Amino acid sequence: MKLGEGVEAAIHCAAMLAGVDGEATMPASAMAEAFGLSPSYLLKHLNMLTASGILESVSGPAGGYRLAQPAERITLLDIVLAIEGREPAFRCAEIRRNGPVRLDPSAYLKPCGINAAMLKAERAYRSALAEAKLSDIVAEYMSDADPRSVAAGCAFVARHQRPQKSSSTKQT
Amino acid sequence: MKLGEGVEAAIHCAAMLAGVDGEATMPASAMAEAFGLSPSYLLKHLNMLTASGILESVSGPAGGYRLAQPAERITLLDIVLAIEGREPAFRCAEIRRNGPVRLDPSAYLKPCGINAAMLKAERAYRSALAEAKLSDIVAEYMSDADPRSVAAGCAFVARHQRPQKSSSTKQT
Repeated sequence: MKLGEGVEAAIHCAAMLAGVDGEATMPASAMAEAFGLSPSYLLKHLNMLTASGILESVSGPAGGYRLAQPAERITLLDIVLAIEGREPAFRCAEIRRNGPVRLDPSAYLKPCGINAAMLKAERAYRSALAEAKLSDIVAEYMSDADPRSVAAGCAFVARHQRPQKSSSTKQT
Repeated sequence: MKLGEGVEAAIHCAAMLAGVDGEATMPASAMAEAFGLSPSYLLKHLNMLTASGILESVSGPAGGYRLAQPAERITLLDIVLAIEGREPAFRCAEIRRNGPVRLDPSAYLKPCGINAAMLKAERAYRSALAEAKLSDIVAEYMSDADPRSVAAGCAFVARHQRPQKSSSTKQT
């Protein structure tokens, strides 16, 4: 089982955006710089987060990305599904039906027990991810991470965030 | 997040091997036929299961595969890890260290909170897979699946299993 590398980038960017002031935005280029990533690589994942309603993008000279919802309402599950898609990790191809003895489709009305067991485990995984709020991730970072890292992170956000004029409105 | 297709084949084969009599084996070609899979594709996964101590292979005219342990002691987690490898699905590349401000490595002694949260969810997934015994999968299949499917499956095993002479010993 493997998650794409974009998941790490997406969660870090969302956590960073949880730290901008009010309606301010952060350009993708700044986030790419913060994590040493290629801007085009990161843009793809930021756009996935935007399409899923986790981020919103603002255009214009003060444009960039910001959270579309409070960090308390965004979970790691939201982010993982936005990047990886909503399909289960285990894809049942119904190979039980492929054998030399072809039975009537009515013999397979009940779901395959193997698929059911794999999906049960995946529900446990998703449930644990759904309990991990972005706000908790950020709060733990602020309280538990090395103070030098926190100071450097906050200074980076303060330097790169783009405050909005009072007339700016969210793109929803 | 995606599991390889081989996981489905591996679990089905292990479940089928739980149904052979005593020390009997089942050739890979029969299992490939049972699930409509290419023998070379399946062989790769059977060898992974053998390398992990879930199956054992017997050579010679009555050769094939059989479970290396009682089905009660084999879990879906064992099979998934044998096929997919033991690494976590979330691979932390420590992108938190890549930014423009390079801090001393001592600033990163504590694990990244994002990695910790992702690994916590993965422990929940693995724990659920570890609770799913192969013997339970087989018992549920025997009691709950359509009787036509059970009859066809049992007949297939009876036809293709290869009893061992009394002198045969397990390859451990």
